[in-house]
Order: sequence, then structure tokens, then C-alpha cells
Amino acid sequence: MPVNDKTESEFAKTPNFDRYTSEGICGLLDSVSPGITPGTIPGHLALFGYDPMEYVIGRGVLSALGVDFKLTEGDVVAQLNFCTIDQEFGTIVDRRAGRIPTEISRLLGQKIRDKVKLSNDTEFFFETESEYRAALIFRGGSLGAKINDTDPLITGVPPREPQGVDEASQLTVKYLKEFLNQVREILRDELKANMILARGFAKFDPPPTMEKRYGLKAFAIAKYPMYRGLARLVGMTVPEKPETHEDMWEQLKTNYENYDFFFIHFKKTDSSGEDGDFTKKVKVIEEVDTWVARLRELNPAVLVVTGDHSTPSALKNHSWHPVPTLLWSQNCRPDGVSVFGERHCAQGYIGRMATKHLMMLSLANALRLKKFGA
Amino acid sequence: MPVNDKTESEFAKTPNFDRYTSEGICGLLDSVSPGITPGTIPGHLALFGYDPMEYVIGRGVLSALGVDFKLTEGDVVAQLNFCTIDQEFGTIVDRRAGRIPTEISRLLGQKIRDKVKLSNDTEFFFETESEYRAALIFRGGSLGAKINDTDPLITGVPPREPQGVDEASQLTVKYLKEFLNQVREILRDELKANMILARGFAKFDPPPTMEKRYGLKAFAIAKYPMYRGLARLVGMTVPEKPETHEDMWEQLKTNYENYDFFFIHFKKTDSSGEDGDFTKKVKVIEEVDTWVARLRELNPAVLVVTGDHSTPSALKNHSWHPVPTLLWSQNCRPDGVSVFGERHCAQGYIGRMATKHLMMLSLANALRLKKFGA
Repeated sequence: MPVNDKTESEFAKTPNFDRYTSEGICGLLDSVSPGITPGTIPGHLALFGYDPMEYVIGRGVLSALGVDFKLTEGDVVAQLNFCTIDQEFGTIVDRRAGRIPTEISRLLGQKIRDKVKLSNDTEFFFETESEYRAALIFRGGSLGAKINDTDPLITGVPPREPQGVDEASQLTVKYLKEFLNQVREILRDELKANMILARGFAKFDPPPTMEKRYGLKAFAIAKYPMYRGLARLVGMTVPEKPETHEDMWEQLKTNYENYDFFFIHFKKTDSSGEDGDFTKKVKVIEEVDTWVARLRELNPAVLVVTGDHSTPSALKNHSWHPVPTLLWSQNCRPDGVSVFGERHCAQGYIGRMATKHLMMLSLANALRLKKFGA
Repeated sequence: MPVNDKTESEFAKTPNFDRYTSEGICGLLDSVSPGITPGTIPGHLALFGYDPMEYVIGRGVLSALGVDFKLTEGDVVAQLNFCTIDQEFGTIVDRRAGRIPTEISRLLGQKIRDKVKLSNDTEFFFETESEYRAALIFRGGSLGAKINDTDPLITGVPPREPQGVDEASQLTVKYLKEFLNQVREILRDELKANMILARGFAKFDPPPTMEKRYGLKAFAIAKYPMYRGLARLVGMTVPEKPETHEDMWEQLKTNYENYDFFFIHFKKTDSSGEDGDFTKKVKVIEEVDTWVARLRELNPAVLVVTGDHSTPSALKNHSWHPVPTLLWSQNCRPDGVSVFGERHCAQGYIGRMATKHLMMLSLANALRLKKFGA
């Protein structure tokens, strides 16, 4: 799979990672457990120290996070598709409405927001993601989310009737039906996007914040909505989005004295892997390596370099391969490994462990934990 | 942190550990989980194969163990401080009674034992630890331990009134109040130690013994009360305390044929670390190395060298760093590592794992475990 038998991390020239590695400890981390390829949410929750098998975040919540929507505890969220319905028979012709362009989708979304009125003045939010995808949020009262998907995942049949398992979910279904009936009218004259399918109903039940859990004031430097949303999910402060690496550095430096923990997200190590572009991924890793060198100026107590999962360009996708990870601090015991990358990190002192432990290890190295037991 | 970038174990010359290592397997063990610094109790429970997150032993029990007191199931235990009370206002002036010397404390303890009488002839034990510290044990009936600390942890206020959460604890509180009222009278004329504060109420609920759990007759060779108490807690036979390394060898040799498992405790690897004395800790490790060489004469089935936690002299305290560990037996598969110490053990066959698994691994190597499942 790897070029010259090396992964992108092994192939990249990373003198700064290597120097941190030689002064620190390293290992290979499994985001969920060996063999499991994590999605973005479990991958990040594990990095933030939350067991990703305990804190399961629904697909609907993912959609809302993905558009940078500020969810409130108790919100019921679903993922929506615009679709094409046969007006005569009511059956689904195209589950993705011919993949309408995002601009059209936004216009239709505005129309829906303007015209739909729910009983009891129940609040809802309709948030376009891209193309045919959107997020739906119901807010207020005690709404349940134990509701089946209306999307049957096949064509030639009508959308399914939504049903609520318990009373709270039946209340949500009442509003959902009002919503779907009005949307059907509003979209009646559209050729492609003339109806909507919903799935992945989930109630937003946020995990305890990092401040509550660890006593950490946390700050997130991330450009893309999903990662900003994830940071917000665990209570991080999320400033305006940085456009360049220089912006990221400025945000870090400016806020350095006011926070205890910084999550700094680089997207392109992942996206170049998904594009299957080995050479670009190597280059991106080398750019991050250069950026990270500057962190020495700030003299952090602990520095961690890791990822929420592997994305080998050979697979063009997230993968289960454990993530090479380095931890650098004054209180670690250097393990003699001096090169960053999978096969070297496998020799390190951290060994192979679950990503969820990384936060505790970091807090320990920052001397922020008390002794357990007498 | 380490001198010459080496830990004490890495720095020490340990030809005997090294020889066992080259014939055995090694790894790095986390007593609780990565990043967590364990206290003495969870550290040892893990070594004895008990999950330290499942078997949580209260502070009061620790006190009783620490004075080598033989607890009985159902005993309610608390940690006591002699303190100084302002006789006029009833407020605490000194939570530690001016750190009265242990001899005074013992005399006052004797006075309390002689004079206090509880209703229903309820049995109690008052055991001096050292200086101002003591342990209190109530025995008999169905006593509860869900009782608040009377120690407010600050001065200038009176001791807190004890209250029981449930009926069984309220019964204990009845006896506790009788005890405290009588103690107040008994100590009335003392200038410093004129009252007592209690905290860490706990009911003694011992884990299953090693004999029950593993079918092992276990024997403990340990000089200090805490470790003797911990050994007794899991059902080990604890002989009179050995004073010297030679005594320890004699106890082992004499009892070798009558037991299946020996816990041999060396204290000074820990205490020299707590003193921050790198050189002394190195020397102590070298002494233990010499002592351990003699074990070959006994031809054990399995030999394990490990610790309940790290105590780096650089931190002068227990730490979270995983513990270098070697396991030697006829049935292990030597892993090619031939030097004991953190960075070498990190390369071993045991890898990095939780300490609680070590007992099973030892039993397996002694061929004492049956197959799991059909």
C-alpha cells in the first residue's frame, strides 16, 4: 500500500516532529479499538478524552455541527435530503433530487424557513448543508427523538410515515408531520426538489464540558465547521475561523495566556488522503511540521501531535490503522525514539493504546492530576 | 527529568535483573490506566490481580491497615486527628494539636481506651498511628458508614456534627456521638490535644481472598504496616515483620514449601524516590538486584519484578509513569530484551498493559489456569 513501503508520515521529512519525538514519548493510538475505522465525531471525542463508545452522537447532530449550528440541550435534530417524488403516485423517484446545486438548495431552504409555521409556535431551524443535504432542528418543550427514518433508502416506494416510540417522540412527530405537509405544498412546483426525507433523529445531549471534566479552559483553532462544532460540543471557546496558517498562529499567540488547552486542527492531512494524493499528503505533513516548530516559542507544558484517525491515500478514506502520536513535556521519560512516523512510534514508550487515554496522559504530564486512592 | 536522560532503573547496574530479563519477558504496566497516578492501595490491589476501579478501599480502612490492625468484615473505620479546641468558643484552633509527639498520643489513646464506654456494650478500637493521627474502629451489629466528616478541614469553626445518611449509619452516629462527648471530657485538661476530629468513614468490605479467587495460598514478606495490612486484606499469611534483607530471605526459605505465592516487598525504592534522592534510589535498586539473584536457588515456577507505581526522584512523589516489569518462567517466550529498565521493557513482549492482568499472566505461566470456554 505505501509508496516505497512507507506511509506518508514515514516518507515526509519532518525534522521538527523528529526533534519533539526524540525529547518526548511516542506510540500508536486506536481511536475506538483495533480494526475500527472511526468517523470524525468518535475520533475527536476520543482525542478530547471522551470514550467514543459511551458518548454516541447521532447523525442528525453531526449535520447540525457540520453547518456550525449552535445546538441547545434538548434540541431534536434530523438529517434531511431533498428528493424527487412522483406527484401522481407519491413514490420516490430520486432520493437526492438530482443532486441539486447548493445555491438552489439555499433558496428553497429560505422559502421553507419563511413559510412554515408550526402549532404552539414551536421553533424549528432548517440549515442547508450542501447540494441536496440539510439539517432540521426542533426546539422547545420536552421533545423526543425516538422516531423512525422517513427515508426508506430505496426508490419506487413512498416516504415512510414517521412514528414516535414514546409520548415525547409522538409530540415531535406531530410537529414533523405539520412540517412535512407544509413543505410538500411549498415545493409542489419544483421539478426536482419537490419533497424532503428525514433520517437519523437524535436528541442533543451534550457531553460534560472539558472545563467541568478536566478543569481546563479550552480554545479551538479550526477552519472547518465540523471541527468547530465538535470543539463547541465539549465546551471549547471557538473564535472566528482562521483562513491561513498565519491566522492560526496569531489566534494561538493572542489567546495563549487566557486558556489552558488548545486544539489546533489541520484539515489537509486528511483531505489529501481522501483524494488519494500521496505526494500532496506528504507535502501537507511537512507544512504542519514547519508550523509546529514555532510552538517552542510559547514554551508549552505539554505538546501532542496526533490525529483523529489515519487516512491513507492508498485507501482514499478514513482507516483503522492506529495513529502515530508524540507527546512532549518536561515530565515524560524520553523513550529513545527519534523519528516520527508509524514504525518508529510503534517502538515508543506510549505503546499501543486507546486514544481516549491520551487526555489523561497529557494532564498527568502537565502535573494537573491528583493521586487516585490512598 | 532523569539524570543523564536515564531513570533510576535505567541508571542502576542490575546484572541479575538483566539476566532474568534476557530469559524472560518484559513490558510497561499502568497500575490504574494511562496518566493516572495510583495511591498505595489501588497500586497493590492491581498487582494482586484485583481491578482497582472495582475494589475501592476507604481512607479509614487505610488508617487501620497502616497500624497493622486486624479488621473484621462489617467494621466501620474512620481516620482521627487529635486537635486543639478553644474551650470558650468551641472552635478549632489547630487541626493537628501542635503535632504532638507519638508518645503523648499513645498515652492519650490508652486513656481513651480505658475510660470510654459505649451503650449496648458496643466494641470500639482506638489505634494510634503517629503524632496526632489515629484510627477509630466500631464493631458489632449492622453499622453503616455513610457519615460526613466531623473535620471541617479549616480552623476558626467548630467541628461538624456527624450525621448518618441511612438508619444503619445513624446507629453508628449514635455511638460516635457518645464517643466524642466522652473524649471531650477525658481530654478537657490537655493544652494541645483536647479534642478529636474524624473523617473518611468507611465500612470494611474485604475483597475475596487470593485463595478463593486463584486457589493460591499466599505469604507476605513485608516490613511496613501498610503493606502487611494490604497483604492481609487479600487473605495472605503475614508472619512477624522482618528487619533485614537476610530476615526476608530466611522467611522465604523457611516457608517456601508451604505456600504457592510470595509477595516480597521492598520499601526503599519508593521512599528514596519520595525523598528526591536519585543516587540512593539507584543504590537501593542495585541492592534488590543482588537479593533477587538468590531466588534461583529456590527454582520458582514464575518470578515477577515490578512495583505498585513509579516514584521518580525528580517528582519526589508517586507518578503515573508505567512500571518496568519482568516476568520469568519456563513457559514464557523470551522476547530478546536483555536489559531491565523503562526504555528496554518498552520493547518487550508484555507491551504496555494494565497491571491487573499481571496476576493472570503469572498464573498462566505457572500452568495454573484452565482453558476459558469450550
